[in-house]
Amino acid sequence: MTEQPLRLGVVGLGRAFTLMLPTFVRHPAVRLVACADPRAVARDCFVHDFGGRAHDTVQALCDDPEVEAIYLASPHQFHVDHVQIAARAGKHVLVEKPMALRLEDCRAMIASADAAGVHLMVGHSHSFDQPYLTTRALIESGEFGAVRMISALNCTDYLYRPRRPEELVTAEGGGAVFSQAPHQVELVRLLAGSEVRSVRAVTGIWDSERPTEGAYTAFLTFANGAAASLTYNGYGHFDTDALSSWIGEMGQVRDPDGHGSARRVLRTVKMAAEEAALKDKRAYGTTVTAATARAQTPPVAYNHFGFVLVACERGALRPMPNGVEIYGDDEKRFEPLPAPDVPRREVIDELVAAVRDGRPPLHSGRWGMATVEVCLALLRSAAEEREVRI
Amino acid sequence: MTEQPLRLGVVGLGRAFTLMLPTFVRHPAVRLVACADPRAVARDCFVHDFGGRAHDTVQALCDDPEVEAIYLASPHQFHVDHVQIAARAGKHVLVEKPMALRLEDCRAMIASADAAGVHLMVGHSHSFDQPYLTTRALIESGEFGAVRMISALNCTDYLYRPRRPEELVTAEGGGAVFSQAPHQVELVRLLAGSEVRSVRAVTGIWDSERPTEGAYTAFLTFANGAAASLTYNGYGHFDTDALSSWIGEMGQVRDPDGHGSARRVLRTVKMAAEEAALKDKRAYGTTVTAATARAQTPPVAYNHFGFVLVACERGALRPMPNGVEIYGDDEKRFEPLPAPDVPRREVIDELVAAVRDGRPPLHSGRWGMATVEVCLALLRSAAEEREVRI
Repeated sequence: MTEQPLRLGVVGLGRAFTLMLPTFVRHPAVRLVACADPRAVARDCFVHDFGGRAHDTVQALCDDPEVEAIYLASPHQFHVDHVQIAARAGKHVLVEKPMALRLEDCRAMIASADAAGVHLMVGHSHSFDQPYLTTRALIESGEFGAVRMISALNCTDYLYRPRRPEELVTAEGGGAVFSQAPHQVELVRLLAGSEVRSVRAVTGIWDSERPTEGAYTAFLTFANGAAASLTYNGYGHFDTDALSSWIGEMGQVRDPDGHGSARRVLRTVKMAAEEAALKDKRAYGTTVTAATARAQTPPVAYNHFGFVLVACERGALRPMPNGVEIYGDDEKRFEPLPAPDVPRREVIDELVAAVRDGRPPLHSGRWGMATVEVCLALLRSAAEEREVRI
Repeated sequence: MTEQPLRLGVVGLGRAFTLMLPTFVRHPAVRLVACADPRAVARDCFVHDFGGRAHDTVQALCDDPEVEAIYLASPHQFHVDHVQIAARAGKHVLVEKPMALRLEDCRAMIASADAAGVHLMVGHSHSFDQPYLTTRALIESGEFGAVRMISALNCTDYLYRPRRPEELVTAEGGGAVFSQAPHQVELVRLLAGSEVRSVRAVTGIWDSERPTEGAYTAFLTFANGAAASLTYNGYGHFDTDALSSWIGEMGQVRDPDGHGSARRVLRTVKMAAEEAALKDKRAYGTTVTAATARAQTPPVAYNHFGFVLVACERGALRPMPNGVEIYGDDEKRFEPLPAPDVPRREVIDELVAAVRDGRPPLHSGRWGMATVEVCLALLRSAAEEREVRI
């Protein structure tokens, strides 16, 4: 790589940032040069880790001439304002999912990026994960005929990980539909290779102490006739990593005997404030730093999002964390994917290809908006107990 | 057991009968005393095996005073007439699934049984399988709260097993929706503990040489608010027995390297007549007899119908061929079910309890009719591309 690394400014040094940190510290094509965050400890850590500048405001960060593109990992509700600030400052934006909570916000974000002539990308989502991209390439090879049915099932302890209070309020972007469904919706959209036409869903709010969606199950149809079944359950009971040889969402080795651990940790805190503090303790600048990210055991496999099975007319494809299981009419085989050198490198690769080479990203603003539309339809279908057309 | 065995007359010595044969030869509470079937070789074998009488007509069989109850395993389209003949003769009936292909036929069957005061039962279906019954009992214990979401996925080589021509014609009761969906629909109905209220489905006819449904995916909602996702794929690609330690549908040990074998065998035949002959060759009276059924390796586990996961509010239950995996808030455990002494004994147990003790069967005519209604709604939803209310 002869080009200079892409100079990235970071808005929000919270949970999403910590999940991208192993990527940032390892990917040669990107360099963090500036940040903005309300937490002083996080800002100080950033300057210590990356030698960049910590700004007081998002505006100041976006005005920083050193910054080429913004990684926007502020809470959902700020995405629309922050994207507009960045775009007006002429900066490309990678905004975390969910892009926004309302379609009009998505439209405003797209319009501002278009007007400024900058790229707007949405991610990370698990539709970036290489096993799904490889599965899509296998579908496009034509060897297996048209894609017809997709099954996606993910069972985790999502709801019992430490949360800030607003993460447990659906109207503020909390809950599994806004936070987890984007992953599943995007990966089935990627695999179907078509746009969603209808959604029928049921959501689950089963724990009165955490009164937001912890689970959903949905049936999607696509313009090309394919259908997908999506189920997510974040109540910490069954764990679909059991079906992936205990390789976790981040490609890490998991302990099969860890059942119930999220709930046990959570029981040690008594109040919402304590829980938020528990979350902060795991945030960037305290226990997580560039050094800890560099020292992390490298993932043994790719990121993934649970059990996924794609039925084509002449074959079935099962993306796994370390490759793709391929079931044809006559033979079955395994297409291995060696463990990635840089976790989630696919996100930065797509961003750099857009900014440096002008290659339109798959995960564009319009792509992200279509996902928000499906998530909103999912909530509406559950509330109105009927199929919702898109 | 001090009571005399139930004296059963069999209508139809075909595939369904061979699947029940291991049960009939082992269950102490039942004795086969008469039969009716168009194939002489099957009739002769029956008389040799069981010492009973082979009748020329269903009417004659039902008039046989030795017969207490009829096991009706004739092709689907004959079920309505045959049930009426049996009921008018005062005989209880166990009719194979699907009960019928039209609701008016189901109604006529129920009416004739009611008028005659006999029990009408529908089965075998996999909702009789002990692991699902045990799972239902665990739900009813209340330990895990209300059942909310059920995921059911079964991938087999169903479509490539030898078939008679009519089994590949949906209008004649062929295809996965009439032949396989009843199993999946009944087991999710059993687990949900409620009646189906809506169906959204997509079906797949992907092989023009076998132009009936080989696959479907469906989203069901229930009166109690639960939802179920059902997916069946009989195209011989992925095999869900991989998720059950290669224990097969009949509780047998399977060869993980058997991929593609059904297609390979089928390729050795050139015409529909040859395929029907291939099917006949595996039928009762030729390669299958009471002796082969007795000599069969006993199943190592219970019958099952693929991957099933039940999400309750406070736990998840995963029925397996040899027990139930239980995932609570804090602990996970396994409730083992030792291998059954008699395969599918649950069917005969329910029939005998009805006939001898007057205990109303779960799998009554009304139960079976509700399943037919869901299967028809599944076809209609796919054809009309909309949700169908029930």
